[in-house]
Amino acid sequence: MELDNLIKRFGASTRASLAVTHEGMGYFAVTPKAPYDGELSTAEQARQLFEKADARLKEIGSGRDRMVFVAILLRDIGDVASFNAEWDMWVKDVAPPARACFEAKLASPAMKVELIVICAVPDKPAG
Amino acid sequence: MELDNLIKRFGASTRASLAVTHEGMGYFAVTPKAPYDGELSTAEQARQLFEKADARLKEIGSGRDRMVFVAILLRDIGDVASFNAEWDMWVKDVAPPARACFEAKLASPAMKVELIVICAVPDKPAG
Amino acid sequence: MELDNLIKRFGASTRASLAVTHEGMGYFAVTPKAPYDGELSTAEQARQLFEKADARLKEIGSGRDRMVFVAILLRDIGDVASFNAEWDMWVKDVAPPARACFEAKLASPAMKVELIVICAVPDKPAG
Repeated sequence: MELDNLIKRFGASTRASLAVTHEGMGYFAVTPKAPYDGELSTAEQARQLFEKADARLKEIGSGRDRMVFVAILLRDIGDVASFNAEWDMWVKDVAPPARACFEAKLASPAMKVELIVICAVPDKPAG
Repeated sequence: MELDNLIKRFGASTRASLAVTHEGMGYFAVTPKAPYDGELSTAEQARQLFEKADARLKEIGSGRDRMVFVAILLRDIGDVASFNAEWDMWVKDVAPPARACFEAKLASPAMKVELIVICAVPDKPAG
Repeated sequence: MELDNLIKRFGASTRASLAVTHEGMGYFAVTPKAPYDGELSTAEQARQLFEKADARLKEIGSGRDRMVFVAILLRDIGDVASFNAEWDMWVKDVAPPARACFEAKLASPAMKVELIVICAVPDKPAG
């Protein structure tokens, strides 16, 4: 069926895909570098995460400048200022997405930040 | 207006729709069987929820294999392993969506799990 | 590149856009009136928020009747009934979106409610 081909899954395991694209949009969650190191600060984990996010965005044919919405999940909302300092550097050269930020316990106690990203995928996936 | 017809609402009450589709995408939240039974485990509530999700997906013209992103909200993130065991059975025969999982208190204290689903809707709604 | 023009950002600061539209869909988060007044009840903050949401929806070419999904983040899930009373008035004349509601600490301790909105954008943006 033709439309089936339009749902593209990247990095699919039996449990989840790392990203899915469909009809010009991409959807994924991204975490710090695994295994998560709870000794790292939220800012340090954020830098790891942004590096992974850049690679993920590129892989699916999107980019930092193509994000339309990002939900930011912080284990400790008290770290929002230090997270934002890293975020601001990450998006300083692009038109930034709409975003929301809230506190939530994440799947691993060592994980201090996770993003949910909705992005435009105008290009063919890399590679 | 023609485009109005493209926003389709399913199970609309005065407060909310059970699902909304638009331009080939579907959006909904799904909970365990109501009234929620706080005596059930997270795994048991998850099985109820997946049964409802399957019906909802079918109703709107989508399916378990058409989900693009799922946010998993658990009342107790300590139940993530038992939830995942149920989840893995639910998606074992399909290419799974991208997903994120976090802890959150839900609208009813008896509700232990809720999903937010974004899915592709290639087909005409059932019925 | 032509498709670039289709990602439209509203109220962009260096950190975030107030809303982003792309391919007939709009994405944004909306909060009560800033600076947030922690002395106000959740219901009062919700009324402020709905006023901002109406303006935001209009600005991007959408409307209260074009919302497809809304995530409701409450600082205290115990306020869900009083929030819902305001919500019900807000959507009483429209076909309502699908929605999910959960408790989360928000970026400011004085903020008691935040919405994440996905909406259809059939019209040209206002103004």
